[in-house]
Amino acid sequence: MPSYTAPVKDQLFVLNDLLKISEQDVPGYDELDRDTLEAILDEAAKIAEQVLAPLNAVGDTQGCVLENGVVRTPEGFKAAFDQVREGGWTALDCDPDYGGQGLPYLVSTAVGEQFSAANMAFNMYQGLTHGAYSAIHTHGTEAQKALYLPKMVSCEWTGTMNLTEPHCGTDLGLMRTKAVPQDDGTYKVTGQKIFISAGDHDMSENVIHLVLAKIPGGPEGIKGVSLFIVPKFLVNEDGSVGERNGVSVGKIEEKMGIHGNSTCVMNYDEATGYLIGTEHKGMRAMFTMMNEARIGVGLQGYAQAEVAYQNAVDYAKDRLQGRDVTGVKNPDGPADPLIVHPDIRRNLMDQKSFVEGARAFTYWGAAMIDRAHGCDDAAADGLISLMTPVIKGFLTDKGFEMATAAQQVYGGHGYIEEWGMSQFARDARIAMIYEGANGVQALDLVGRKLAQDGGKHVMAFFAMVTDFIKETKGRSDAFDKDFREPLKAASKDLQAAGMFFMQNGMKNPNAALSGSYDFMHLFGHVCLGLMWARMAVAAEDALAAGASDVAFYETKIATGRYYMARQLPMTRTHLARIETGADTVMALDAEAF
Amino acid sequence: MPSYTAPVKDQLFVLNDLLKISEQDVPGYDELDRDTLEAILDEAAKIAEQVLAPLNAVGDTQGCVLENGVVRTPEGFKAAFDQVREGGWTALDCDPDYGGQGLPYLVSTAVGEQFSAANMAFNMYQGLTHGAYSAIHTHGTEAQKALYLPKMVSCEWTGTMNLTEPHCGTDLGLMRTKAVPQDDGTYKVTGQKIFISAGDHDMSENVIHLVLAKIPGGPEGIKGVSLFIVPKFLVNEDGSVGERNGVSVGKIEEKMGIHGNSTCVMNYDEATGYLIGTEHKGMRAMFTMMNEARIGVGLQGYAQAEVAYQNAVDYAKDRLQGRDVTGVKNPDGPADPLIVHPDIRRNLMDQKSFVEGARAFTYWGAAMIDRAHGCDDAAADGLISLMTPVIKGFLTDKGFEMATAAQQVYGGHGYIEEWGMSQFARDARIAMIYEGANGVQALDLVGRKLAQDGGKHVMAFFAMVTDFIKETKGRSDAFDKDFREPLKAASKDLQAAGMFFMQNGMKNPNAALSGSYDFMHLFGHVCLGLMWARMAVAAEDALAAGASDVAFYETKIATGRYYMARQLPMTRTHLARIETGADTVMALDAEAF
Repeated sequence: MPSYTAPVKDQLFVLNDLLKISEQDVPGYDELDRDTLEAILDEAAKIAEQVLAPLNAVGDTQGCVLENGVVRTPEGFKAAFDQVREGGWTALDCDPDYGGQGLPYLVSTAVGEQFSAANMAFNMYQGLTHGAYSAIHTHGTEAQKALYLPKMVSCEWTGTMNLTEPHCGTDLGLMRTKAVPQDDGTYKVTGQKIFISAGDHDMSENVIHLVLAKIPGGPEGIKGVSLFIVPKFLVNEDGSVGERNGVSVGKIEEKMGIHGNSTCVMNYDEATGYLIGTEHKGMRAMFTMMNEARIGVGLQGYAQAEVAYQNAVDYAKDRLQGRDVTGVKNPDGPADPLIVHPDIRRNLMDQKSFVEGARAFTYWGAAMIDRAHGCDDAAADGLISLMTPVIKGFLTDKGFEMATAAQQVYGGHGYIEEWGMSQFARDARIAMIYEGANGVQALDLVGRKLAQDGGKHVMAFFAMVTDFIKETKGRSDAFDKDFREPLKAASKDLQAAGMFFMQNGMKNPNAALSGSYDFMHLFGHVCLGLMWARMAVAAEDALAAGASDVAFYETKIATGRYYMARQLPMTRTHLARIETGADTVMALDAEAF
Repeated sequence: MPSYTAPVKDQLFVLNDLLKISEQDVPGYDELDRDTLEAILDEAAKIAEQVLAPLNAVGDTQGCVLENGVVRTPEGFKAAFDQVREGGWTALDCDPDYGGQGLPYLVSTAVGEQFSAANMAFNMYQGLTHGAYSAIHTHGTEAQKALYLPKMVSCEWTGTMNLTEPHCGTDLGLMRTKAVPQDDGTYKVTGQKIFISAGDHDMSENVIHLVLAKIPGGPEGIKGVSLFIVPKFLVNEDGSVGERNGVSVGKIEEKMGIHGNSTCVMNYDEATGYLIGTEHKGMRAMFTMMNEARIGVGLQGYAQAEVAYQNAVDYAKDRLQGRDVTGVKNPDGPADPLIVHPDIRRNLMDQKSFVEGARAFTYWGAAMIDRAHGCDDAAADGLISLMTPVIKGFLTDKGFEMATAAQQVYGGHGYIEEWGMSQFARDARIAMIYEGANGVQALDLVGRKLAQDGGKHVMAFFAMVTDFIKETKGRSDAFDKDFREPLKAASKDLQAAGMFFMQNGMKNPNAALSGSYDFMHLFGHVCLGLMWARMAVAAEDALAAGASDVAFYETKIATGRYYMARQLPMTRTHLARIETGADTVMALDAEAF
């Protein structure tokens, strides 16, 4: 049975040493001193380690079952959900006006990492609810907020996002679900939605579906899409649960993983819906949910890699196989532990350096969101908007790759379900797909975000890197060689790729779009390289200031050196591919495939 | 439901145009004219497409079940196995003295690709039998061969390989299974073996287990391992099936994939065993099976990528989503097919160029084996021995990556089991693990094969590349730019990596072993680059000779150009990693992980 230990010390390092959040001028951050943060993360860790992690394999094995129209979640899920709810964990960063704790998004991100690593499928019930909460909170009327949000903050009612239909996912303009206006101001919603995570279950008394649909007679395509609240049970004016609405579960999908989450086909049959925001402006409201959800999905990617890594390390230390080629390390045993072997090290260092870099990147992004919202900072908003597809796409691709790499450490045992490593890989796989498949993230990045606001956000990113390189000039020869020079080279590759797009994309958009996927990865590597260089500075500073835990900080620096030496050189291959443009990519006629 | 179409035309291109096998001076090749080859592959295709492929999902869904000590295979497997057997497909390259057809190994490789792509789990029953056949054929006594081989050639009896025990996989020296000599010359075998593919089932009247075990009092470790024939049912002198032997199935493992194959825990309890070859020389005999099996596993890797690719192409042509950014391509439809989008193209070209390159590489390797065996050619034997870990490790890593990439084309549908794309990825995953996990392949390559016979085989490989580059000098500017120069650069990277190992590996073996995995991939890319450059020459020559199917050959050249431009640049990143040596890989104490 795999286990999970919340990496509280590593999380605190990012929050305190790297981001120095209590020094930042962001509302709520001043209260987040070291002790408070540690207390929150330690409490969360108890839930993650003792309540959620033990249910992870249960969820995978039992899955969700649809019986007589009712979805049954795996054994223990309901009791655990109650515990999470009662502990206030669903309300962390929600609005105090509706029962939330009003903590920064960054705090809920750190807690979310723990919960997601411990049990991804379980944590999605809350995650989807939070997305729906955000959409209603931002775009709903005061009455809607008062009616729905308190119960959603507490997860007494959970939420869903209904976008996909059988014939359309990315291209939502093709949508067929209809919402017909009624005299009383409500709408009758009819249609079928698929891949609805947490679509129905037995852990809450109501499910608040957010549904995209078209109002007949509205504009064609994506411009005619509106967003509706469609509760499973209608809600009476006093907030009590009323009659059953015209929505039902068609079936639960059999999936590769996240079996503990009920992925439903939802059938809407003249269900009563309530418009959120303005008619035909549903995509705007949905994007509020989606941007947040995309960062949450990036987090899922590296969280699965984290828990898989932890177990791979345990196995590598425990399993005796072969001898260290440079000299026996375990003379009293029949063989040395796997961890003595260079290729096992290489594999574990790949995982470790990715996970820790990804955590820094994600928390940095979450802090950007806090700044954007809390300080009305348009620059921060632009930067995180630019980075969202990178966080989502790069971290989930690499997260799956690393979960698979962790599985590999187990040899044959990694392929046997009993050992749990297969589940981490299977669960991680979905993160590359949902909330916009990673190819769509790359398209969003290159086709839209790069040029947004005249390209000023990507320029701001480059300035950030350049400033860092300037600031750290002359720090030390070792820092130059291990961090500064590699970062400079990687960032130059990124700039060259951007330049290639500018020079060629106007003439031929395909010349840029053919390199979009490589660009997303190139960008991701530069971001993680920047994070590692900054973490090295933070660790060096801590050591210089006489920090007692010398080994911890030295390990950080060594892990960063690994990333810079072994992972960052990928930027040159990505650039080489990008610079070949569309020629070889688009050479064939469709029939030639 | 996914489908499979045997790529006979592509297979024939490799056999005829690239390898020109009927012109090669290898026993049996002279009979393999175009028509004969085509007839064989067309007949095999009928079985693969109509019999095996429809059972692939059945095998995945139903799996194998152990009931009252008897293993039941999925519905339809037994009838299909009978059909394969009766068609003579299990006997293709077996010795005519024992009922085989005596065809070259290359032919059975090409047929094996079809069968493995159509139904990997199913084809393993025959594949394991063939491995056991080879070990007995090479190392058994005349009496043993006469007793066992005829029924194994026909697969009336199937075979297995028993190496792994719960506490040891790679490090077989730790093995505990014992074989105690009896007065009658037989042995009593006792112990537990795990992960035994095709360990038991209901499709043959006997199972011939090949079991590694230690004879008490023999040398310690790997030097004291012997190989035994342990039949499920003892075989009477007249060849009839006799009493049940002391071997039973402990359980069937729950795995990530290949559910149609029964992966068994096998318990041996004083089972009667018959020594193969010499006492304590079991590893030598086992390696006969393992080298062949490793090439077969490399084939599994790209075969899964092939079938996944075929389905991804169908989906990309069929699914309407979004519009071509350069202009609408399907004006009468609500959207354009996925295949118009550059990132979908990029993904499909990655898959296509890998699969076709991998096929050429594998067939080239199979031809090397035919040459080594048929002509007693030590150079060919050395070369294929060097290449075996590359074929196994590189093709299975990339095969899984590409099966996953094909799954990605389906978006959310790729994650739903109903669509079948998940199975290809889950099945492909095992190929990276069994027959020696890929890290062990890399270790074998760098730690052993490179220096074998004074490094002469790797020098022969380099000479082969250099000769090709010389021969094609002045062919055309386009060929230079698209193929020759990229191959030259990649091969230079490979040589530089080899040089780095030579210069640093003696002082510090870890400096070489830390780069072993990257070296295996670097080598793989150079091999596929070489294959593509050769295929381009073959296609250009065919066009120059007036071949009628112009589109086919032009597509080959365009696909090769893609590989050279977009995949081959990976060699520079691999080299950059290798050249950082062991410093960052081995920096941490084990406790720091």
